[in-house]
Amino acid sequence: MIKAGIVGGTGYTGVELLRILARHPGVSLQAITSRKEAGMPVAELFPSLRGHVSLKFSAPADACLDKCDVVFFATPNTVAMGQARELVDAGVKIVDLSADFRIQDIAEWERWYKAKHAAPDLVAEAVYGLPEINREAVRKARIIANPGCYPTATQLGFLPLVEAGVIDTDHLIADAKSGVSGAGRKADVNILFSEAADNFSAYGVSGHRHWPEIRQGLARAAGRSVGLTFVPHLTPMIRGIHATLYARITREADFQALFEARYAGERFVDVMPPGSHPDTRSVRAANTCRIAIHRPQGGDTLVILSVIDNLTKGAAGQAVQNMNLLFGFDEAAGLGDIAVVP
Amino acid sequence: MIKAGIVGGTGYTGVELLRILARHPGVSLQAITSRKEAGMPVAELFPSLRGHVSLKFSAPADACLDKCDVVFFATPNTVAMGQARELVDAGVKIVDLSADFRIQDIAEWERWYKAKHAAPDLVAEAVYGLPEINREAVRKARIIANPGCYPTATQLGFLPLVEAGVIDTDHLIADAKSGVSGAGRKADVNILFSEAADNFSAYGVSGHRHWPEIRQGLARAAGRSVGLTFVPHLTPMIRGIHATLYARITREADFQALFEARYAGERFVDVMPPGSHPDTRSVRAANTCRIAIHRPQGGDTLVILSVIDNLTKGAAGQAVQNMNLLFGFDEAAGLGDIAVVP
Amino acid sequence: MIKAGIVGGTGYTGVELLRILARHPGVSLQAITSRKEAGMPVAELFPSLRGHVSLKFSAPADACLDKCDVVFFATPNTVAMGQARELVDAGVKIVDLSADFRIQDIAEWERWYKAKHAAPDLVAEAVYGLPEINREAVRKARIIANPGCYPTATQLGFLPLVEAGVIDTDHLIADAKSGVSGAGRKADVNILFSEAADNFSAYGVSGHRHWPEIRQGLARAAGRSVGLTFVPHLTPMIRGIHATLYARITREADFQALFEARYAGERFVDVMPPGSHPDTRSVRAANTCRIAIHRPQGGDTLVILSVIDNLTKGAAGQAVQNMNLLFGFDEAAGLGDIAVVP
Amino acid sequence: MIKAGIVGGTGYTGVELLRILARHPGVSLQAITSRKEAGMPVAELFPSLRGHVSLKFSAPADACLDKCDVVFFATPNTVAMGQARELVDAGVKIVDLSADFRIQDIAEWERWYKAKHAAPDLVAEAVYGLPEINREAVRKARIIANPGCYPTATQLGFLPLVEAGVIDTDHLIADAKSGVSGAGRKADVNILFSEAADNFSAYGVSGHRHWPEIRQGLARAAGRSVGLTFVPHLTPMIRGIHATLYARITREADFQALFEARYAGERFVDVMPPGSHPDTRSVRAANTCRIAIHRPQGGDTLVILSVIDNLTKGAAGQAVQNMNLLFGFDEAAGLGDIAVVP
Repeated sequence: MIKAGIVGGTGYTGVELLRILARHPGVSLQAITSRKEAGMPVAELFPSLRGHVSLKFSAPADACLDKCDVVFFATPNTVAMGQARELVDAGVKIVDLSADFRIQDIAEWERWYKAKHAAPDLVAEAVYGLPEINREAVRKARIIANPGCYPTATQLGFLPLVEAGVIDTDHLIADAKSGVSGAGRKADVNILFSEAADNFSAYGVSGHRHWPEIRQGLARAAGRSVGLTFVPHLTPMIRGIHATLYARITREADFQALFEARYAGERFVDVMPPGSHPDTRSVRAANTCRIAIHRPQGGDTLVILSVIDNLTKGAAGQAVQNMNLLFGFDEAAGLGDIAVVP
Repeated sequence: MIKAGIVGGTGYTGVELLRILARHPGVSLQAITSRKEAGMPVAELFPSLRGHVSLKFSAPADACLDKCDVVFFATPNTVAMGQARELVDAGVKIVDLSADFRIQDIAEWERWYKAKHAAPDLVAEAVYGLPEINREAVRKARIIANPGCYPTATQLGFLPLVEAGVIDTDHLIADAKSGVSGAGRKADVNILFSEAADNFSAYGVSGHRHWPEIRQGLARAAGRSVGLTFVPHLTPMIRGIHATLYARITREADFQALFEARYAGERFVDVMPPGSHPDTRSVRAANTCRIAIHRPQGGDTLVILSVIDNLTKGAAGQAVQNMNLLFGFDEAAGLGDIAVVP
Repeated sequence: MIKAGIVGGTGYTGVELLRILARHPGVSLQAITSRKEAGMPVAELFPSLRGHVSLKFSAPADACLDKCDVVFFATPNTVAMGQARELVDAGVKIVDLSADFRIQDIAEWERWYKAKHAAPDLVAEAVYGLPEINREAVRKARIIANPGCYPTATQLGFLPLVEAGVIDTDHLIADAKSGVSGAGRKADVNILFSEAADNFSAYGVSGHRHWPEIRQGLARAAGRSVGLTFVPHLTPMIRGIHATLYARITREADFQALFEARYAGERFVDVMPPGSHPDTRSVRAANTCRIAIHRPQGGDTLVILSVIDNLTKGAAGQAVQNMNLLFGFDEAAGLGDIAVVP
Repeated sequence: MIKAGIVGGTGYTGVELLRILARHPGVSLQAITSRKEAGMPVAELFPSLRGHVSLKFSAPADACLDKCDVVFFATPNTVAMGQARELVDAGVKIVDLSADFRIQDIAEWERWYKAKHAAPDLVAEAVYGLPEINREAVRKARIIANPGCYPTATQLGFLPLVEAGVIDTDHLIADAKSGVSGAGRKADVNILFSEAADNFSAYGVSGHRHWPEIRQGLARAAGRSVGLTFVPHLTPMIRGIHATLYARITREADFQALFEARYAGERFVDVMPPGSHPDTRSVRAANTCRIAIHRPQGGDTLVILSVIDNLTKGAAGQAVQNMNLLFGFDEAAGLGDIAVVP
């Protein structure tokens, strides 16, 4: 049994981590910190955890996180980068679900996140935790930069094509739709029920923080810079991301076979049969990415459909997948949940 | 490992059974029948099961259900009563999720279900599968009449009061609200998204089939006939039942303590602290009933709030709980899922 | 054309008032105040008003509200009571959509609203603006206390029975369900989409501010104090209130006929045929209350179903109805919208 | 007052037509036909119309449609083409909300709609009822082919660019999201609440009937054939279409100014300020198309956001707009409703 701590357990990625870790066979939850809720039983804030999690939120100072084997940061951006060094020095592995360690280009990070980075050297050693592309590096890392939700769905959908060099990577288009939980558990008017329900809109078309993250990942796979138009939308559901990806074909191939081969051994990527339309509920609360490949009217444009649960494969589930790799557990330990349908 | 079969696996209770049984440590799924979908892989109809269920739907004639240890009927009413005898005679245990064996008074059943009952003698021996009241009888039964969703939430909410004889049982009121999945996976206009979303209404106020079932259960507990006004409502959510129960106090008691004592050993009934308002999502996809007791303004009327997931504790989860009892498994085997929040 | 001003136009009752008043044939919108948004075009905050409302929000000091014929307060509680006197003295009629003038018993008001009342004498002269019971008083009033949403649906549902003296008014039960917009356009975590969607719960069972308001109204109709158990619930829809009302019969009557006679001349109360189940969408964005009367199984308990749109008949529509009476317009002027279905 | 009839009034476009026409100052509703519901009061099927529509559904044979000035077909495809000639010969104007007269290439129509066309000559004379491009032709037409919902949002979004010849029309991409009412009021399992709620998916990626319709419209504007990748999605809301359109720039221009100039005189197309993200609720129940123009990161790809209410500007509202043109009414008569927000 390893000892795990969570910093910032009051948000949606926090409660999803708790849901998964509470039943993980190899993990003992040691501490969950929240400055604001210190002293309150976790299950009082989240009654769904009654009978499953008996911990109270603790103040960061009292949490003894340095005695943990692994600490998850389910915090707003800029928190993890300030606390990581002390933990790493104490031999604690870090899985950061925020964006602090995702972008290798510090200047780029600072431009998008509007802050001075506190630990550029740790960024340099951090491993981007998309196991399907970085599995071996993850196993040996000290700090995992857990990918964003849009980047997970988008990269997994584009990767086989980019790696195979069969599409025009200067003009990729990702039209992505997210459930509202992706905006977090914070009191903003625009994500109130009465604003977001029975409504649909794009946002951040001029620029979204996941744009540089996706470009960085695809550029690595391509071996060169890529061009990307990324349009996120808010859709009235709680969980789920649906990325609709468009790419112009530059070289003919059996695209279905390409995807099947690329993800042959992957337990959390499901390449669906030709003609499929994966829906987000088919991955609700499951650590799975389902992908379908289309070539409408036999034209020169490929359409890739890629769905995940933004809180599971797009956040907490992937974080546990990374933890499993870090500690030599079965990669699927604790991640066997079947999607909840309907 | 026991062998399990499911008759009628294309509805919501069917897919929920599959979600639970596919991960149950003591169960091997043998057959899932569907006349209409025979030959189709189950995971083609429900892609959420891809990678978890490899069975195909089989025609009833080909399913060899009599080789199973247990058969679940997730069928429309009137199917199970026609097939039960042959299976029982072959030594197969039956858990019927439909209403065929729920009402002991055959005439009453026939009045509400508008059909001639095919197996009155099996009704007589069937055990009403609400483990919290019938646990020992369930263990020894051959046929389990798995309770309806409204009856589960309503009976668990009223039982401690009725058993203790502290309320006026001639004038019970149950104002119940159900998610739309309670109406089943059938093509009716009134449960279309565009009809049921962003909308709320009562239905069946003049009479609903769960009314006699609730009255039967409460009458057993009271030792006499009870009076009940039962008003079901459709609320725009997928899963969940919220029963708001009203009862006039006839004898003073510590009602909170009464509930806590009654359900002290129960693993699937959670009596919440005074002042609580359980929400349905706190039991989403979990086999739990959460209950809170209120006495507004210290008056003579008690308000009991009782929530379940209609497909889990209100159907498939409870069915598996009964199966666990039937076969000597840990009562909670396969039922450890934590509610999915948000 | 009368001149109308709105204080506090950034909430849901504010935008609903604007939707209605912008097309009212006898009203010219003069000013909409918002301390926070002063200077911003109203249609920038609410793009639905583009092309219909050209005003900007103005600071209260610049709004010249005393030049208006009528001023609507769509403000949080305790604002209107501080500004009313100056306007009334200037000859401006006031329609207050908040709760400041609703409760005649000042001590009771102060207990529930946890504030010292600033203008008890104005409360004394204020008229409770439920036209179906106070029409003549409304016409002559200077200050209208526009009723709350729950109180509108609940009182209209109980009134014919209470006035006729045919039910036990010591034990009324109102089980009410509200769409989330009833909680206002404010950044609270519990009304976020990801909290309130696909979820159902009661709240405020121990006490809700609309309880004394409903009791006051029913007591007036009964000529004596009444007993009421009132349980509000949050249901995952934007607009709409569904009140399910329970009353014990004390004297036999033709209850359907009673309601039809009581509301015979009312243009905004629709008594539906026997056996009906009004749904909230049938009044979405319409100034209508639809009511159905049930007597399940011919017992001694009546069940009344009463639905309104909480923002229209439950707030802004009723406010305009009151304004029409105040200024001698046709009572239905500007209120002809047909409910939006689906 | 002109006399209007509706064939097939039991669907969503039917009830939306009724909502609009019941309040239109120049229209008298004469007949609404439904083979199945003949004899039933329209307001019994749609209680939202109680007090506004007193007609009963009539059998087609009894409806005397040839006495009407205009007949709307709110029918499934292939109905209007069989009944149009008789009405046209009787001097009745036809507005067909189905697809029967939309596609000029009969072979193409027959391929997509899988039927033999019954009136190719009437197709030839029918006018495609998108007033923003065909206003003068509409005024003189006998038969209006009312556009589809996706085609309305998509064409209005692309038209200024295509007409100006500033984009690559060989590789247009339209990623469109529709509310569920777009699928009609028919009992299909896939549009049940419990299937479509809290869920998102694409459908018909390999080919959708609106694809040829959009291509036909854009080809007319371009003066040559165009290439289009069209991916429709189902999003869990009732009404609304959000089209996200992607086009590669081939010639520089002030794109914002281009749109503003193109739609300068249009009362139902609202070009929003730069940087806007129109949401579908801003046009809920209103006959408006709102459009925003983006050029992310100053690249070579334009992103156009175009929203409509699929039942209003995408169907019944546009039909009334066409009727207004046909009979010389103010083009906006009966279409002044402000969007219902929230």
